[in-house]
Amino acid sequence: MTVAPVNLVLFEIAELGQPLALADRRARHLLDVLRRAPGDTFDAGVIDGPRGKGTVTAIGADAIAFSFEALFPPVAPEPITLMVGLPRPQTARDILRDVTTLGAGALHFVRTEKGDANYASSSLWSSGEWRRHALAGAEQAFTTRLPTVAHGQSLTAALDALPAGSVRLALDNYEGAAPLSATVLPQGAHVTLAVGGERGWSAAERDFLRAQGFVLAHLGARVLRTETACLAALAIVRARLGLM
Amino acid sequence: MTVAPVNLVLFEIAELGQPLALADRRARHLLDVLRRAPGDTFDAGVIDGPRGKGTVTAIGADAIAFSFEALFPPVAPEPITLMVGLPRPQTARDILRDVTTLGAGALHFVRTEKGDANYASSSLWSSGEWRRHALAGAEQAFTTRLPTVAHGQSLTAALDALPAGSVRLALDNYEGAAPLSATVLPQGAHVTLAVGGERGWSAAERDFLRAQGFVLAHLGARVLRTETACLAALAIVRARLGLM
Repeated sequence: MTVAPVNLVLFEIAELGQPLALADRRARHLLDVLRRAPGDTFDAGVIDGPRGKGTVTAIGADAIAFSFEALFPPVAPEPITLMVGLPRPQTARDILRDVTTLGAGALHFVRTEKGDANYASSSLWSSGEWRRHALAGAEQAFTTRLPTVAHGQSLTAALDALPAGSVRLALDNYEGAAPLSATVLPQGAHVTLAVGGERGWSAAERDFLRAQGFVLAHLGARVLRTETACLAALAIVRARLGLM
Repeated sequence: MTVAPVNLVLFEIAELGQPLALADRRARHLLDVLRRAPGDTFDAGVIDGPRGKGTVTAIGADAIAFSFEALFPPVAPEPITLMVGLPRPQTARDILRDVTTLGAGALHFVRTEKGDANYASSSLWSSGEWRRHALAGAEQAFTTRLPTVAHGQSLTAALDALPAGSVRLALDNYEGAAPLSATVLPQGAHVTLAVGGERGWSAAERDFLRAQGFVLAHLGARVLRTETACLAALAIVRARLGLM
């Protein structure tokens, strides 16, 4: 796996005004990669908050001190919810990072009938490791905004949490009648994009998705990995909304 | 790195009618993953040739024998040339695999002014390892067709080889005037998509690209990794051509 570069150093709001331990990966980045000395500035932001400039104010034996100046208000969450069948942990790591970089407002890893139930008990989720990958994606993208991440819900429960009026699209290479590029997608819409995961949807899930207003669409004849399908579909939806 | 699954077992045309050594990764796949016995069939294809069914005819001490029945003629090459600034080898591996899966007719890794010249001397290129990653992408996609891959040419030389009449688009987050989704892209066009690589284009390269008829477009405000930019842009172009 390629390590994503840190273009923006992100802090929790509670970390402002506190010393940053030298062992912290962001302190290592400021000193070892950016080679910042006291008085030097760096691009910084507060997670889900403003973006601006950090200044290294002092470098001590155990920690560095820094200040933060907010220059830009937080950007609005992206108008896209991506739901994906819970994949194996390595695939989930890639999706967490790259979907955050590309831009989604919410990212729900849902349990599906054909998915492997063991994936839900990975330490990726129980240890909180998942958040590190989303953070890496935001640091790469130069944004403070993380998607709202949920995992382990059933498809049914995840649908209950969707915004009202969201345009509902589901990828299905077997029963999708039209390519994703040909679906109806009004400018300014909020879009929910559902991706079935490694083994796709069951017949019952297809019926359920249709009953819930989802249009089934495909990405062509090629068989894509789950992470490639997520990125391709998200890029296409973002382009169709005029976002890229 | 996640290993791509083999959905289609690909052979060189010269391998048909020959025994397949047991140590060959495809023999291991047929026996260990697909658990094929003599008389069993499997999805198979000839690289850049027909797709069809293979049959295991015998399993010997050192090799297996198989036959191949062509059922579908080769698909046409995809009408898209992707040119990307030569990246670090691990990024190139991901691009070789994922761009082949998603679908491009040609994939040119070109030397750029801001690129690291050392990347061209990687064993990825000199050992021929690069082809293995493209093959993995095709096996995943269930296609026999590989992109034509070139590497190490200058940007100028690579442009000389482009098909006449190709619509020329270059990603540029600094001087791209419109999002890629808003560029003019006639149905049925051949498209050349140029991606600058990790450090982007130099001022001279921008001038050269414009003089050569390229329209500079961006993918929005987010800073994407080279491989993410390649996949997102390729997906958007494929969707706009009605291919996905």
